[in-house]
Amino acid sequence: MRPLHELGAAELVPLLARREVSAEALVLSCLERMEAREPAVHAFAHFNPKQLLTEARALDQGAVRGPLHGLPLGVKDVFDTAEYPSEYGSPIYRGHQPVADAACVAIARASGALVFGKTVTTEFATFPPGPTANPRNPAHTPGGSSSGSAAAVADAMVPLAFGTQTSGSIIRPAAFCGAVGYKPSYGTLPRVGVKMISDSLDTVGAFARSVQDVALFVSALAGRNFFPFDEGKARFKLAICLTPQWPAALPETQKLFEALPARMQARGATAGTLSLPAAFDGLAEAQGTIWDFEMARCLADEYRRYPDLIRERLRQQLAGGWTIPPARYDAAQALARACRRQLDGALGDFDALVVPSAPGEAPAGLEATGDPVFNRLWSLLHTPAIHVPLGEGPNGLPLGVQVVGRIGDDARALACARWIEQNLRA
Amino acid sequence: MRPLHELGAAELVPLLARREVSAEALVLSCLERMEAREPAVHAFAHFNPKQLLTEARALDQGAVRGPLHGLPLGVKDVFDTAEYPSEYGSPIYRGHQPVADAACVAIARASGALVFGKTVTTEFATFPPGPTANPRNPAHTPGGSSSGSAAAVADAMVPLAFGTQTSGSIIRPAAFCGAVGYKPSYGTLPRVGVKMISDSLDTVGAFARSVQDVALFVSALAGRNFFPFDEGKARFKLAICLTPQWPAALPETQKLFEALPARMQARGATAGTLSLPAAFDGLAEAQGTIWDFEMARCLADEYRRYPDLIRERLRQQLAGGWTIPPARYDAAQALARACRRQLDGALGDFDALVVPSAPGEAPAGLEATGDPVFNRLWSLLHTPAIHVPLGEGPNGLPLGVQVVGRIGDDARALACARWIEQNLRA
Repeated sequence: MRPLHELGAAELVPLLARREVSAEALVLSCLERMEAREPAVHAFAHFNPKQLLTEARALDQGAVRGPLHGLPLGVKDVFDTAEYPSEYGSPIYRGHQPVADAACVAIARASGALVFGKTVTTEFATFPPGPTANPRNPAHTPGGSSSGSAAAVADAMVPLAFGTQTSGSIIRPAAFCGAVGYKPSYGTLPRVGVKMISDSLDTVGAFARSVQDVALFVSALAGRNFFPFDEGKARFKLAICLTPQWPAALPETQKLFEALPARMQARGATAGTLSLPAAFDGLAEAQGTIWDFEMARCLADEYRRYPDLIRERLRQQLAGGWTIPPARYDAAQALARACRRQLDGALGDFDALVVPSAPGEAPAGLEATGDPVFNRLWSLLHTPAIHVPLGEGPNGLPLGVQVVGRIGDDARALACARWIEQNLRA
Repeated sequence: MRPLHELGAAELVPLLARREVSAEALVLSCLERMEAREPAVHAFAHFNPKQLLTEARALDQGAVRGPLHGLPLGVKDVFDTAEYPSEYGSPIYRGHQPVADAACVAIARASGALVFGKTVTTEFATFPPGPTANPRNPAHTPGGSSSGSAAAVADAMVPLAFGTQTSGSIIRPAAFCGAVGYKPSYGTLPRVGVKMISDSLDTVGAFARSVQDVALFVSALAGRNFFPFDEGKARFKLAICLTPQWPAALPETQKLFEALPARMQARGATAGTLSLPAAFDGLAEAQGTIWDFEMARCLADEYRRYPDLIRERLRQQLAGGWTIPPARYDAAQALARACRRQLDGALGDFDALVVPSAPGEAPAGLEATGDPVFNRLWSLLHTPAIHVPLGEGPNGLPLGVQVVGRIGDDARALACARWIEQNLRA
C-alpha cells in the first residue's frame, strides 16, 4: 500500500470516515514526509506537530465531524488562525496572533479538517518571495504568492491547501509545482480574516493533487456540489484560446498548445478555437490598474507606519498605486464590467476555455516568482479557473493548462478540467 | 462667535489650514462638549483625551498635512485602530488591539484628521444594541448599528464620524439622531480593517451635520471631488418614490411625503413620482437572505468558539444563516444583479429619488435600534444614499428624507441632497 501521505483527499475521506485510517496515522505520515522534504522545500512558515497530533487524536476519539474529517490542510499565511501566528509574509506582523480563524479556516475545521500548518506566502501575497523552493527542482521558483501551499501539496506533504489569487497567485504556483489549483468564481468562498490586497480581485481558492480532490474540498467549504457531472459520459466542447497574452508563451507552451486540438479530438472532445472580443485586449492592463490602486489603499497604514519594513519592489508598487487617477481606475472597472457581460456570449456553445496557465516551466532562481501574465484576465473577469498538470517541459518541470469557465459555472469548468486530467495527462 | 465644537467641517477646514483655529483649541472644545453630554448619550466606546491632545499639539506644530487637517473624527468601533482597542461591540474582542489602522482611518490620518475616539457600535454592527441613547431624547434609540457615530455628530461632540452600512446602519441612525448620513456607492471607500459581516453589502460611509461637510470628508478619503455642482444654479428633477415598503411608513412620514411635491416645486425643482419596476418588490427579502447567508460565514469562528458570548438575537440570526440553501442565496444575488441593471433606465431623466429614510421618528426604548426596512433596497442595489434632516415629528424627534442616486453617480445625488437641505429644511 502507498504511504498515507500520498493518497488524495477523495481517497482518504471514506477511509477516515470508516475509521480504517486514523487522523493520527495520516498526520504522522504527512509529518514524516514534511520532515524529510521541508529542509529543501521550505513550504511552511509555522507548524506545531505536538498540537496537531493532539487535535488528530481528539478527532479520532470523537464523532465524524463532517465531509473533511481528518484531512490535514496547509493554510497560506495570509489567513488568520487563532492557534498559529499569522504574519502575512511581512516582518510588520511578526508573531501576530489573531483572535479568530479566518472564516474559511473555521468552516474547514467545523467540517473536520486539521490545520497542518501555515504555508509560506510572498510579502502580503504580492511579488517579493518567501523562502519556498520548487519541490521538483529547488533551484527554481515555486511561483507565488501561494508558494508554500502549492509546494506542500505537490510534494505530498498535505493533500489539500488554501490559497488566494489576486493576479495569478493560485494558478501560477500550481503550474510551476505541478499541483491542481482552483480559483473559484469570485465570491464563492468567504474572505473574512484573509489579509486583503484588492477588494475587487482577492479570491480564496485551493490546491490538491487531482481535480476531484480540489472540487471535494471547495464543495465542502461552500456547502455546494461542484462535481455533479458524470464526466465519463459527457462530450465536452472545449475552446482553445491563446488569449491576447500569447506572445508571452515560451516554446514549451507553444508546442503543448499546437498539439492540443488533435489530442482532445482523439479522446472524443469537440475542440475548437476561440478569439476573445477586441475589448478584452485591455483587461490585463486594467487588472494591474485596479490591483495597484486598491492595494495602495489596503496597505495604507502599513505603508505609512512601517515603510522600512516593506521591501523595495512592493514599496514602489504601493507608491505607484497612489499616483493612479481615480478616473483611470473607474475606466478599468467599467471595462471589466463590460467584458464580464460579454463573456457568456463570446463563449458561444463551448463549455469552457483552455488557455495557458503560465508562460512555460518555472523559471530558475528564487528571487522572483514568475509572471502572472496569463492569469490577470481571469482574476479580473471573476471566472472559475483550474490548473491541470499534464506533463513536463524541457527542463523536467511541470507543464499543464488552465481551464476557464463562465462566471458562476464552476461545476462545468471542473468537469472539463477533470476530463482533461483523465484524457490528456502524459 | 459660536463655540468651535458647533462648527462644521467645511467651516473648520480653512480656519485650521490658516492656523486661525488650532487643532488643540478645537479638540478642547469638542472634549468639553463630550464631557458635558457623554453621561447621557454614551456615544463613545473608547477615548483617550491625553493622547488626543498630544496628537493635536503635534499637528499644530507641523505643516498642514492635508484636506482634513485638524478635524476630530468619531470612528465606529468596527474599524481597526492601532492606538485604541477595537472591540466590534462584542465581549469576544474585549481589549483587542490591532496592529494597524483600518485603511480609511489611515487615509484620514494621513490627510490630517485626528481620531477623537471610538464610537459605540451594536454587536458586530448587527441588531443587539450598545449603550448609546438618542441625544435629542435619551429615552429613545439613536438607531444602529452606527449608533455612537450618529449620536456624537448630531450632538456636536465631533464634526465628522465614520459609519458602515449593511442593511440600514448609516441612514437609520442619521435619521433618528438628526445627522446627515452618507452611504456612498458600494466600493467607494476601502473596507480593509473593518470587521466584515457581509462581503456583498458592507459599505463604509460617514456622518456630518451638513451635506457639504459629509461630501468634503468622503471626497478627501476617496481622492475624488464629489461636490462639483453649483447647486444654486441647477434645476434638479427629483422623483418621489414611496418604495414597495411604504406600508411601513408611520403617520409623520406619510404627512411629510404628502407635502413634499408642492414644497419642492415651490422652490423650483421638478418633482415627479416614480414607482419601481415590479422586480424590485423582492429586493428587501433578497437583502435579508444575502446578509444572513454571508454573515453566518463571516462570523463562523466566533459562533463556533464563543457561542455564549454572542447575544441570543444575533446567535439566532447566525443559526438561521446556516439553514439558507445556496440556491436561495444565488437567486437573491441574481435578482440584485438584474435590478442593478434596470435601475438606470427606471430613473429615466430624474436626477435622484427621494424616499423614506425610516418608518418615522426614533422609537422609544434602548433595547432595539429600529427597523432598516427603508434601507435594505439601497444597500443591496449599491446606490449612493444620503439622509437629509428636514425637521421634527410629533415627539419632537428628527425627521428627514433619503436621497438615492444612480450607482456611481454620487456627486449628483449629493448635489440633490444639498438642494433639499437648503430649500426644504423646516
